[in-house]
Amino acid sequence: MNPYTKGGFTLPGEAGYERLTLEMAEKWGADVIRDSDGTKLSPEITQAGYRIYSTICIIREHNEFARLHPDAQQQTFLFSEPVTATGEKMTIHLLDGYFEEQFELNDSGEAMAYWQVWDRTEDRLLSPEEWEYADGCVTLNRCVPYHRYSVSFLAWRIWEEINMYNHTTNHWTSEHLRQLDPRHPLAWEYLQSWLDRWCRENPQTNVIRLTSLFYNFVWIFGSDLRRRTRFTDWASYDFTVSPAALKAFEREYGYALTAEDFIRQGKLQATHRLPTDRKRDYMDFIQRFVAEKAAKLVEIIHSHGKEAYVFYDDSWVGMEPNGKYFASVGFDGLIKCVFSGFECRLCTSAEVPVHELRFHPYLFPVGLGGLPTFSEGGHPEEDAEAYWLHVRRALARQCVDRIGLGGYLHLTVGQDAFNDAIAKMAADFRRLKALQACGAPAELPVTVAVLHAWGSLRSWTLSGHFHETDRNSLIHINEALSGLPVKVRFISFEDVENGALREADVLINAGRAGDAWSGGDAWKDPEIVSEVTRFVYEGGGLIGAGEPSAAEGKDTRFALAHVLGVDQDDGRYACHPPWAWTQEMSDPFFVAGESVGKTAGIRLTGPDTLVLNARGETPTLTVHEFGRGKAIYLGDFYYSPAGARMLLEMLLYLTGADGRAAGLTDQYLAECAWYPQAETLVVMNNSGEPMEVNIALPSGTVRTCPGAGEICFVPLGEKAVRL
Amino acid sequence: MNPYTKGGFTLPGEAGYERLTLEMAEKWGADVIRDSDGTKLSPEITQAGYRIYSTICIIREHNEFARLHPDAQQQTFLFSEPVTATGEKMTIHLLDGYFEEQFELNDSGEAMAYWQVWDRTEDRLLSPEEWEYADGCVTLNRCVPYHRYSVSFLAWRIWEEINMYNHTTNHWTSEHLRQLDPRHPLAWEYLQSWLDRWCRENPQTNVIRLTSLFYNFVWIFGSDLRRRTRFTDWASYDFTVSPAALKAFEREYGYALTAEDFIRQGKLQATHRLPTDRKRDYMDFIQRFVAEKAAKLVEIIHSHGKEAYVFYDDSWVGMEPNGKYFASVGFDGLIKCVFSGFECRLCTSAEVPVHELRFHPYLFPVGLGGLPTFSEGGHPEEDAEAYWLHVRRALARQCVDRIGLGGYLHLTVGQDAFNDAIAKMAADFRRLKALQACGAPAELPVTVAVLHAWGSLRSWTLSGHFHETDRNSLIHINEALSGLPVKVRFISFEDVENGALREADVLINAGRAGDAWSGGDAWKDPEIVSEVTRFVYEGGGLIGAGEPSAAEGKDTRFALAHVLGVDQDDGRYACHPPWAWTQEMSDPFFVAGESVGKTAGIRLTGPDTLVLNARGETPTLTVHEFGRGKAIYLGDFYYSPAGARMLLEMLLYLTGADGRAAGLTDQYLAECAWYPQAETLVVMNNSGEPMEVNIALPSGTVRTCPGAGEICFVPLGEKAVRL
Repeated sequence: MNPYTKGGFTLPGEAGYERLTLEMAEKWGADVIRDSDGTKLSPEITQAGYRIYSTICIIREHNEFARLHPDAQQQTFLFSEPVTATGEKMTIHLLDGYFEEQFELNDSGEAMAYWQVWDRTEDRLLSPEEWEYADGCVTLNRCVPYHRYSVSFLAWRIWEEINMYNHTTNHWTSEHLRQLDPRHPLAWEYLQSWLDRWCRENPQTNVIRLTSLFYNFVWIFGSDLRRRTRFTDWASYDFTVSPAALKAFEREYGYALTAEDFIRQGKLQATHRLPTDRKRDYMDFIQRFVAEKAAKLVEIIHSHGKEAYVFYDDSWVGMEPNGKYFASVGFDGLIKCVFSGFECRLCTSAEVPVHELRFHPYLFPVGLGGLPTFSEGGHPEEDAEAYWLHVRRALARQCVDRIGLGGYLHLTVGQDAFNDAIAKMAADFRRLKALQACGAPAELPVTVAVLHAWGSLRSWTLSGHFHETDRNSLIHINEALSGLPVKVRFISFEDVENGALREADVLINAGRAGDAWSGGDAWKDPEIVSEVTRFVYEGGGLIGAGEPSAAEGKDTRFALAHVLGVDQDDGRYACHPPWAWTQEMSDPFFVAGESVGKTAGIRLTGPDTLVLNARGETPTLTVHEFGRGKAIYLGDFYYSPAGARMLLEMLLYLTGADGRAAGLTDQYLAECAWYPQAETLVVMNNSGEPMEVNIALPSGTVRTCPGAGEICFVPLGEKAVRL
Repeated sequence: MNPYTKGGFTLPGEAGYERLTLEMAEKWGADVIRDSDGTKLSPEITQAGYRIYSTICIIREHNEFARLHPDAQQQTFLFSEPVTATGEKMTIHLLDGYFEEQFELNDSGEAMAYWQVWDRTEDRLLSPEEWEYADGCVTLNRCVPYHRYSVSFLAWRIWEEINMYNHTTNHWTSEHLRQLDPRHPLAWEYLQSWLDRWCRENPQTNVIRLTSLFYNFVWIFGSDLRRRTRFTDWASYDFTVSPAALKAFEREYGYALTAEDFIRQGKLQATHRLPTDRKRDYMDFIQRFVAEKAAKLVEIIHSHGKEAYVFYDDSWVGMEPNGKYFASVGFDGLIKCVFSGFECRLCTSAEVPVHELRFHPYLFPVGLGGLPTFSEGGHPEEDAEAYWLHVRRALARQCVDRIGLGGYLHLTVGQDAFNDAIAKMAADFRRLKALQACGAPAELPVTVAVLHAWGSLRSWTLSGHFHETDRNSLIHINEALSGLPVKVRFISFEDVENGALREADVLINAGRAGDAWSGGDAWKDPEIVSEVTRFVYEGGGLIGAGEPSAAEGKDTRFALAHVLGVDQDDGRYACHPPWAWTQEMSDPFFVAGESVGKTAGIRLTGPDTLVLNARGETPTLTVHEFGRGKAIYLGDFYYSPAGARMLLEMLLYLTGADGRAAGLTDQYLAECAWYPQAETLVVMNNSGEPMEVNIALPSGTVRTCPGAGEICFVPLGEKAVRL
């Protein structure tokens, strides 16, 4: 059997389409068949000789239990939209504006102890004597006229959010599924015995694919379709809360969290914003709880001789594959759905035996990004190939163990172009995996440290998929980095204080003023600023994008303005004309103009900053020498194949490294990976045209001619792996 | 004599061009001849029967005295550009980067007591033991490596700034003029006796035109031509400082100002920024000093039977014609140079017997805005007519007593188009003055209150001419208002607390977050916010432009978001999708798209805000009903004739006033003014094309056909003034 036509592939089977299932398993070389949310496997499939994954969403599908124990359901803090008082008395309807099918007020005494009423005009917490509650409403009897009031309260979440999404997007009509909180003692007992019984009753299953654990990412629906989603954050912990959790936290930490720690003036705790210390405590508290409970589930699964894989999405909150407690759970595999290269690296960076990717598009009528993928007018093969161009270059750096698909297999009927494309991707994946089995691809002696408030906990991802976070330059930078031949570390400000820069060659800080990626208040710390200053002065490289190191209260808007050679006028430079400049005609590295964007108000700090690119009067790409090091400023960065190459060139420019060590193409729309142990060069044409590519290697230059979008495997020695 | 061909006109005469002077006096109908900076009048001119103005810059032209008493010269605080320490010892050259012909270090013991050395990385003031001074340099012996240090110090200003400007711009080569500080006792005695002697020696002079008083606006030159102007602010007080002033201040106020009160982390105290309380104290202190000294000069002038006019520019700092002490000086006239309508209103708003405008262009080779007006390629008549279109509409609302020109008269030779244009403007000015002599033009029952941190002290102007401040939407709004038939008041936040809104119909707040025009921290005050909320709720109108009411620490970026119906996403709305909207197809008032600009991040606060204009996904013009009132938000506003009309329509929409009460044209590029007492309608065609204009008045509709750019005077009754 040709090893590149079979294996490492998980196929979504579908009862009622048994023949199709087995045909497609053959075509795509599947060794595993799985069910999906909305599909089942029949005995004809499970007994066909494939390994079987069974999808279980542990906290869902227990509506009968939820009906009997409504207090075992999950909760969240919500706030009423602030209302302006026009007299001394006012009544606030708490759930006004929220989706009534998602929430139900928790007005138990235990919950109400956590309610708060705020005068948002003064930002003053009202004393309990100032308000009273009845029938879903809070009444204030002594308002200050023309002040704005809001109530923070706890609500039950009565519709599991992924099920809610599938109903509202894919027109499902089945019963709304509820979700149980494993912190509820009866629910936890019930879930364990339910899982135990399930394992006993399903001997055909080899791997339980947990989708995922207990707490969904935050997704709050509104009642008005003009703003259906009020809030959604892939990495927020708000849906883990309950009076029981708050009490346990207080017992352990010796201080109490309040509603305002979650509500924060109605803005909630989005991952993109700077975390408070209290939020960090709470997250750690939840992570330990989730790890402990998850380990118990894995124990049950293992006790039945099955393996436990976990899906890295949906109800993944608290699991944190890049966190401190993940390895302790004992999972056998981690499955990440991917649109992008950074998501591959996100998956491979977790400590777990098997890394698996679930490719997009999902076999659903409508794609997650809203495309009509498998509906009228859709082009699933184009979507798949576009994602593959992103994923491929990351796999060429660090391969996974398995790939696969999910959804309704019957949607592939008649989609020959798509089906062929997937077969080809699967084969190329197997080749990359085989090469890396011999040894890692050659890497430049360059370590890039990406600095932000979350550090390694948010390695590679910001908060969700690329298209959900694409207004942040950092996700574009991470995407570019995911396929470059350099070491990448994600470090926090605490890491900087602990000497992390001693092991870095280039530091990247990319974000907007006050966000978690730029770092906000962390830049008020003179130690951080002087350590980065030292790092560059002594020869390090710095790349700042957007509003890097922006902080309040400094003499410059960017705490690193003196290093970057640019600062931002947020009004403070009123009456200070900027330094005049002319755009440099020579280009010290390849500048991909289409990947460079503008940040308003950027100005030079002095005459020594070189402007390589600009929009109107605003420099968008500058270079500044500082001591023995250099700094590059980018107003904004958008991922493109050319932009990824520009980033590589910047790294070479900043470090003086010789790109040939890892292979360097003479075409900026082509990339390569050189596997010294496998004596094989991989060349990827990232463009839609065939091209001649010459690759400089330490041993000389190699010429290849990959077709449009093609990946070539070029044997360069006697020991080259036969592909 | 036709009263519209002569009078109210000040001509700049020029010795050596006597015949030209008298010819042009005849052509333009001058009744006054003046000298200018750089020109003299000969006896042939002064004895020709005209009243004579003599220009005196009181603190200048005393180089001999300055040489003998160098400590009588004026000073300023400067700061050395922050330098990064790379070891423990560092020497800072204080004047590096400053224009060496403008500044000289004041390292006297008295001055050095005010010097400060700052660690800007920590924002820590060093103790005097940590540094030492010698030969223009400060040496630090115990730096923290990679911290940035800066020295704040006092420097003598050894070149009067207007003279410096004329040398560097108009290639003057005469001796550099120095300037004396009237706070120096010997200098003050000297200046008084010098003036007294001058008056005695110049009996031909009727009016002494003071240009202006003692302290120039701040204008700091750098040594590098790529940033020649380091700082320039027309209304800043930094050039009034000296150890003597600081000591007197401390004696009076009981607390000491420090260098940092002026330097403010190197950003100085620009008028566009929020003033500190200490700056307000200092300004009041200087205003009293200037008024007291100016009154003494006026007394001397009056004692010689002459009148004292003062020029509202150049060394005007501390004079503050809209301040508390101006009237007490006893000036006979105020002369303002004007490019714009708001500058006419700025002049007429001062309490003084005679208001005079000096038109632009100045008779100089290069115009103040940098145009080659009277040089090769210049079109002085086009410049003059463009300015006139702005000035005319303001004069139609509130006329001045006199107009005039300045500069080198000989530059008008051969400029027939310019000379004719000025003659026509002068005649039209005289007609407007004659109409207003009968009574004010009809006004709508609408009072507009413009709210900013400076209140009435900065009525109409921001800080300098239109082209110097044109990135601020407020100057565009003020320019539009200057020709509208409404009452306009400029109020401060203190005025709001004292009930100023009780007398307003529409409130305008227009600025950028944290600037003096938006108001910054003032919006943290719940009383201000609830008072404006009340005002609109009870029926008032609100116009917010740019980042109105933006303040830190509130639950919304705009403290008035709930009233405006829009807020700004400065990052805080991360993960909160905005309300969807569609642009309204019906237009509740005339929207002049070209006058509407965008502010980034604007989003609706709810579904009830109507979007009238947008750029891409960002609303740029919205309307929101709030209680019985309404609010309009403008992302940005650029003055244009159509934009001025849009603003008028907005005021009518917000107040429900009937525009016919003051006359309303059916063409948005035409304006009118209706003089009931003079029974005359004035119609101004603001476009470059002839047009038919129908004007709705309370008595019916009047039809006119003004030519391109023309102003028509239409008699509408038997008592109409013959023009």
